[in-house]
Amino acid sequence: MILIRNARILGKEKGNILVEDNKIVAVGDIVDKSDVVIDAENLAAIPGLFNSHTHAAMVLFRGYADDMKLHEWLQKKIWPAEAKLNAKAVYWGTKLACIEMLKGGTTFFNDMYFFSEEVARAASECGIRACIASAFFDFFNKDLLEENIKRVEKEVKEIKKNPLILPAVGPHAVYTVSLEGLKRSAEIAEKYDALIHFHLAETEKEVVDFKRKHGEGIVKTLDNIGFLSERLVAAHSVWLEKNEIEILAKRKVNVAHCPTSNMKLCVGKAIDYRSMREFGVNFCIGTDSAASNNNLDMFEEMRFAALLQKFYYNDPTLMKAEEVFDTATKNAAKAFRLNAGEIAEGKLADIVLVNLDNLNLVPGHNLISDLVYSANSSCVETVIVDGKIVVENGYFEGEEEVVEKVKKIALDLVKG
Amino acid sequence: MILIRNARILGKEKGNILVEDNKIVAVGDIVDKSDVVIDAENLAAIPGLFNSHTHAAMVLFRGYADDMKLHEWLQKKIWPAEAKLNAKAVYWGTKLACIEMLKGGTTFFNDMYFFSEEVARAASECGIRACIASAFFDFFNKDLLEENIKRVEKEVKEIKKNPLILPAVGPHAVYTVSLEGLKRSAEIAEKYDALIHFHLAETEKEVVDFKRKHGEGIVKTLDNIGFLSERLVAAHSVWLEKNEIEILAKRKVNVAHCPTSNMKLCVGKAIDYRSMREFGVNFCIGTDSAASNNNLDMFEEMRFAALLQKFYYNDPTLMKAEEVFDTATKNAAKAFRLNAGEIAEGKLADIVLVNLDNLNLVPGHNLISDLVYSANSSCVETVIVDGKIVVENGYFEGEEEVVEKVKKIALDLVKG
Repeated sequence: MILIRNARILGKEKGNILVEDNKIVAVGDIVDKSDVVIDAENLAAIPGLFNSHTHAAMVLFRGYADDMKLHEWLQKKIWPAEAKLNAKAVYWGTKLACIEMLKGGTTFFNDMYFFSEEVARAASECGIRACIASAFFDFFNKDLLEENIKRVEKEVKEIKKNPLILPAVGPHAVYTVSLEGLKRSAEIAEKYDALIHFHLAETEKEVVDFKRKHGEGIVKTLDNIGFLSERLVAAHSVWLEKNEIEILAKRKVNVAHCPTSNMKLCVGKAIDYRSMREFGVNFCIGTDSAASNNNLDMFEEMRFAALLQKFYYNDPTLMKAEEVFDTATKNAAKAFRLNAGEIAEGKLADIVLVNLDNLNLVPGHNLISDLVYSANSSCVETVIVDGKIVVENGYFEGEEEVVEKVKKIALDLVKG
Repeated sequence: MILIRNARILGKEKGNILVEDNKIVAVGDIVDKSDVVIDAENLAAIPGLFNSHTHAAMVLFRGYADDMKLHEWLQKKIWPAEAKLNAKAVYWGTKLACIEMLKGGTTFFNDMYFFSEEVARAASECGIRACIASAFFDFFNKDLLEENIKRVEKEVKEIKKNPLILPAVGPHAVYTVSLEGLKRSAEIAEKYDALIHFHLAETEKEVVDFKRKHGEGIVKTLDNIGFLSERLVAAHSVWLEKNEIEILAKRKVNVAHCPTSNMKLCVGKAIDYRSMREFGVNFCIGTDSAASNNNLDMFEEMRFAALLQKFYYNDPTLMKAEEVFDTATKNAAKAFRLNAGEIAEGKLADIVLVNLDNLNLVPGHNLISDLVYSANSSCVETVIVDGKIVVENGYFEGEEEVVEKVKKIALDLVKG
């Protein structure tokens, strides 16, 4: 049992939080003898943040290729480096990403990458919660489709064995996976009660090309083949019409918006958050990979999300601090079907203690505003996931070894 | 003397840096007996960052009022709170801001606010370099003009006495200061060899209103009255035509771009950096105040600058990492006429040591990319200003007292 004493609790007065096993069992004026007592006099307790779209292992490529046109970036830099990836590189890269996320108050990430069993192993060892999908491409080839479906089914079963990890099927996007591939993905997700992690309408080109090929928009087509459901987490979702957003809302699709990546890769417009809110789409946010971000700091991501909306739609009241905070907590908990995202009795004990004396949070007129518009990862003092302390005094035990490994592996990947 | 041993130096190999008095006297393979030796084995030495537009004491209002329309924000929140400001509040508020900036690797700030002597005192005590202007409004009133001119002249003389502080005259903007007031400001600046700190073309309304009133654009008019010169640091400079940018370049005006503030306050478009670069305008960046930012982290500001340009002008190659880094170092050093902004022999010893094992900088493919696209204030380990160590192990001696004072003062300011 852990007793967190005298914490400032979001939306509440100061109080104590009692954790038993992996749950918050009481919040308020509790007196209890616990094995572990955390004095939270100058700390605030907030729910762990959810990063709803990542390719975690790509921290290996942080800073490797920036300021380039998308096509050139992929062809000359990212793909050649990714071609050299192996299980070991993905394992260590993911470990670094998990530690970066945990130290930054992120207790859950939704990942899509290669070697998904390695991703799951790294995440499990770090004690972070995650939903992990193996990226799946069939490039409109029947044999590749069958081969991939087999592999994905095997990996979903494997991933399910890790207690903190949810499995997902990860068909990449409509320009890399056939409609048959998408349909089969949805069937596997249904069969194993898994989620679906997918890139939707990131660029205008994707949308225009699809319509030219199929004579109908992406969303309508995906709806017709039964791909849209509450299992689906649709990353990006930028180039959508209002009527398409309405369909997503009806089908209870979850959206994972990635503002920093959208800006850096120049997707050409801002996601239509206002319409999504109106129609009731479940709206989450994520960092995307460190190759296009270039960090995994969810405090910054909340800031970019709010500022991009305000600026692009010319309305300073759009996406208020409270709303954007929900996109990184409650909304995501709903998307991933976890009883979490709040500091309240009965919720999973995924708790972040932030230092209220960190200068970014002083003087402290409004905690939510400070968290969204000013905080960064360095405000995080202690992180508890599933009832276990994983970060203490801003430190993750053993991080030095991971840093050294990743430096060496990353250098090797981009050599020659 | 300080010897920094074995630092990674931007654009160079690893090497030693020797500091004597307030200057870098040697860089390279120096062996020397110094009073102080810093082992920089896992650190990179970068020039201190310049924050070219702030209202530092407004950290008092961090998080106090967000997500509001500009007019309502000013009238209902900021102005009533500012009306209660006094010398003590500005002194302590500025101290907090200086510590936040120093801990974030910023060794110089260009400030405009009330009680400028208090700002200068706070900055001097913190050991940060600054250019400090007293905000000057005449609201088109002759008496107010004369009164302000007298005050400003006195303050400029006073501020000049602080060795680390450059004085500036701070006529606020064309909608709060008469043309006569601007002309007289320029004359005082000339007389005392001071800079001019001014808000230019921040919103479309400012530009349209001015043209309606004067029949001519702001830049042309200011040029006619001799207001434009290399003494001028023009904050924002968003709503400018190409021909106006050309005039600014000819007159050697320095621009201080504030991307985060521009996004948060919804100024409606992004600064035309490409034209400024083409015409050769000296381009700097700043955070603006913590009321509209909401932190003073120049690493983040570099990131927002680069990402806003790329996104708005739909070109991922626009404002490359190296260029944005210059806006926060070399370019600003030029604007403020300081022999600084680089780690090189003969330069002022304003040096920041960043921790290369900070996860945001790992694996470390490209230091400049990592600093611009991934770093935050927590990457900073040691800060030297004018040859003196002011931040050590990420800690500023005495910061706790300042935090306590500011919490109390800020709460009082917004009460009732």
